Amino acid sequence: MNKGIVFHYLSKALLLSSALFLVPALVSLYYREYFFMLIFLGVGGGMALASLPGVFYRPRHKYMFAREGMVIAALMWIIFSAVGALPFYCSGSIPHYIDALFESVSGFTTTGSSILTDIEALPRGILFWRSFTHWVGGMGVLVLAIAILPSSGNALYLMQAECPGPQVGKLVPKGKNSALYLYLIYGALTFITIVLLFTGGMPLFDSVCHGMGIAGTGGFGIKNDGLSYYNSPYLDGVVTVTMLLFGVNFTLYYYMLIRRFREVRKNTELRVYFSIVAISTALIMLNIRPIYHSVGKCFRYAVFQVASIITSTGFATADYNQWPLFSQMLLILLMLIGACGGSTGGGFKVQRCVILWKSGSAAMRKMVHPNSVNQVKSDNKILRPEALHHVWSYLILYLGVLLASFLLLSLDDMDFGTAISAVITCTNNIGPGINSVGPMENFSFLSDFSKAVLSADMLLGRLEIFPILVLLAPSVWRKSF
Amino acid sequence: MNKGIVFHYLSKALLLSSALFLVPALVSLYYREYFFMLIFLGVGGGMALASLPGVFYRPRHKYMFAREGMVIAALMWIIFSAVGALPFYCSGSIPHYIDALFESVSGFTTTGSSILTDIEALPRGILFWRSFTHWVGGMGVLVLAIAILPSSGNALYLMQAECPGPQVGKLVPKGKNSALYLYLIYGALTFITIVLLFTGGMPLFDSVCHGMGIAGTGGFGIKNDGLSYYNSPYLDGVVTVTMLLFGVNFTLYYYMLIRRFREVRKNTELRVYFSIVAISTALIMLNIRPIYHSVGKCFRYAVFQVASIITSTGFATADYNQWPLFSQMLLILLMLIGACGGSTGGGFKVQRCVILWKSGSAAMRKMVHPNSVNQVKSDNKILRPEALHHVWSYLILYLGVLLASFLLLSLDDMDFGTAISAVITCTNNIGPGINSVGPMENFSFLSDFSKAVLSADMLLGRLEIFPILVLLAPSVWRKSF
Repeated sequence: MNKGIVFHYLSKALLLSSALFLVPALVSLYYREYFFMLIFLGVGGGMALASLPGVFYRPRHKYMFAREGMVIAALMWIIFSAVGALPFYCSGSIPHYIDALFESVSGFTTTGSSILTDIEALPRGILFWRSFTHWVGGMGVLVLAIAILPSSGNALYLMQAECPGPQVGKLVPKGKNSALYLYLIYGALTFITIVLLFTGGMPLFDSVCHGMGIAGTGGFGIKNDGLSYYNSPYLDGVVTVTMLLFGVNFTLYYYMLIRRFREVRKNTELRVYFSIVAISTALIMLNIRPIYHSVGKCFRYAVFQVASIITSTGFATADYNQWPLFSQMLLILLMLIGACGGSTGGGFKVQRCVILWKSGSAAMRKMVHPNSVNQVKSDNKILRPEALHHVWSYLILYLGVLLASFLLLSLDDMDFGTAISAVITCTNNIGPGINSVGPMENFSFLSDFSKAVLSADMLLGRLEIFPILVLLAPSVWRKSF
Repeated sequence: MNKGIVFHYLSKALLLSSALFLVPALVSLYYREYFFMLIFLGVGGGMALASLPGVFYRPRHKYMFAREGMVIAALMWIIFSAVGALPFYCSGSIPHYIDALFESVSGFTTTGSSILTDIEALPRGILFWRSFTHWVGGMGVLVLAIAILPSSGNALYLMQAECPGPQVGKLVPKGKNSALYLYLIYGALTFITIVLLFTGGMPLFDSVCHGMGIAGTGGFGIKNDGLSYYNSPYLDGVVTVTMLLFGVNFTLYYYMLIRRFREVRKNTELRVYFSIVAISTALIMLNIRPIYHSVGKCFRYAVFQVASIITSTGFATADYNQWPLFSQMLLILLMLIGACGGSTGGGFKVQRCVILWKSGSAAMRKMVHPNSVNQVKSDNKILRPEALHHVWSYLILYLGVLLASFLLLSLDDMDFGTAISAVITCTNNIGPGINSVGPMENFSFLSDFSKAVLSADMLLGRLEIFPILVLLAPSVWRKSF
């Protein structure tokens, strides 16, 4: 691997993103939390200073492949999480660093699992920073999903497509313009979400924080009772719809902007995504009918929870720990499925599920009719075997991560459902699980070891495993080939 | 599909196997349980009579492909389970038919999950019949794994290899001789097991029943306390070793008989299988050390439970519901892995896990070094892409069955761990799960619906899904192509 170029571009990216600390600093200034403002400025300034040597470093070789891009992405997320934990830690808001790291990883990976027991006790600047990490993480995911890991986006090309140029811009195969469009779409959708929340009677600060949490499909709230604090059907509706919109492949919004509506209408993933939402909502409504008195309430809580879980946001308006087992099991299945590829959402992704389903059916067809042609199609295009292999390989690694984490987490003292759901919710970047990590609980009771395991799971899930494994492969670092 | 030939050979197979009812009839005669003897004779005779028309039926076409073989296998298991439930039901031993069917399916699929709350109250003939179904099921598995579904055996050829001849004998590609050898090995190993149990002080009847349960990797006991009733370290040791031996690919015993020891020594699956047993035993010993006072006891209980679970037998000498969560989680992982292909054991199979692991590593290598050659080898032979596809397809279907069953079972009133482990233990043909279906509990409290779901899971797992799906495919039945 070209270590020089990784060091150089990583430093450049860190310098650029150290400017992000100015935003919470300004918020702290506005609310006259000067101590917290100084912490944000200090951490941001420190990161900028530390990245200077690498910015001025001139790498010997200029070549750069997908491998280098993945290592940069993985390191960015890890370093950003470690640095992003400092404001929590240094301000004393979260006195243990491993807790602060968990919260920061949970933020930047747009998971939303929290170790905080009393959120409302935190100052505005810190609350804003928590939600802001979701928004920044969501932006990062869009670059990752659409530019660095195109296989998880709509294109389904293999990673082997090299980006041989030395410029970071070359990491975006479709040119800088499309990436810019995506950011504009992301920004515009976030703005609309905030406006809709504000017009529903939510205070401006709350609207901004929740808007950023929705945009990144994160799920950090700013109230101890979560969104049920506001108890407004209108707000529930806004959050439901906007969550679902951020779970859609952003390339489709781009297509809509350039007026290629046919691509949107014919998109299989989109149809399956909304079908899953509709069917799951109906099933949960039937299942929770005995708990709530009206069909309207059943619908309101069911559709909200389904949208929140499948998009991997993780907000809750009802304590689904009190729902029957069937609803909980269905929500856990939705956690595994996840949102659409190329969105800010997590999980295995609807698109991959569709491909697996189709390849499973093709295998069945072949078994029943040995002479049939055995091709798997997606959106009327025949999938190349490499794309299929990529999905299969990802499934194997994904299952491996889940099973290993189940085992590691079970070393801690908890019940079976808690262990299983904690791993699933963190690896798929959702937020809450069931039982002791349910929607009205938090992750504070876990041991440091379990928090470390779950932090690793959040990063593995967010980066779709491969970049972290590339980062850890000794052979990548040994030689500079 | 050639429906005529399916009807003809299915009837022939049913006629032949109706003779099996003579064995429990003789046992009942010996113990002077004449009523039960009559029931066995009646059921066997009825089955023989019912199969006569099909035996004399002359099918129009003589062709026969793997598809027909799979349909026959699936129907055999289903019909045999339905008929095998009659002795329980008609004798009043199990007064509800769905319970009797669950017990019978559990027997013939060599699962060993039971709905009985007081086993010792049953007459000898019925107890013998329960264990005998395991032994018959084990024999059936060997034909299925080595002759009908060669992909799950050692050869890993695709199912598409046609068996075009009209004779059932042609279903055994290596000729009738190798199948005969396998039966002889199975019989001899069973006999040795019974003798070893008997010399350890177990009464003859108990030895025979448990020997058949071990041979089929079933797990039905004849005591309410299971094997802990005998509380003998020697017997625990015998059962541990013999269980492990029945979890080995039977082709390897065949190789040993024809003195091809090199094939046995070099077998990757065998090494991985015993490594998993050794590592799991060590981990569980460390984990349960605080519960038992001596290292010897820890070893005795740990190795027994590991062997019992990985071979999918399901006997228990300790209530592992009382063990820490880590041990339970590890046992559940072992349930998913299962025994070696081509054995009487169930589960996903060690061989398939090895192949998935290797193809996952190959994908990783390709990611890190894009120009590397991307071949997956097994036992130094390069795996053909078709073989890989077959394993991947099986994984997808297997996961589909598990997830769908989790959802269906959660409609019943139980906790999360019970629902998950009940599905896993039944689909992998183990026997006990955790929590309410733990080793000292039983499946009687479940609703009829859950029992039906789990019965289907047992059949799906035992037949490795494909045959059942072929059976259910409407297109198979529509045309006689």
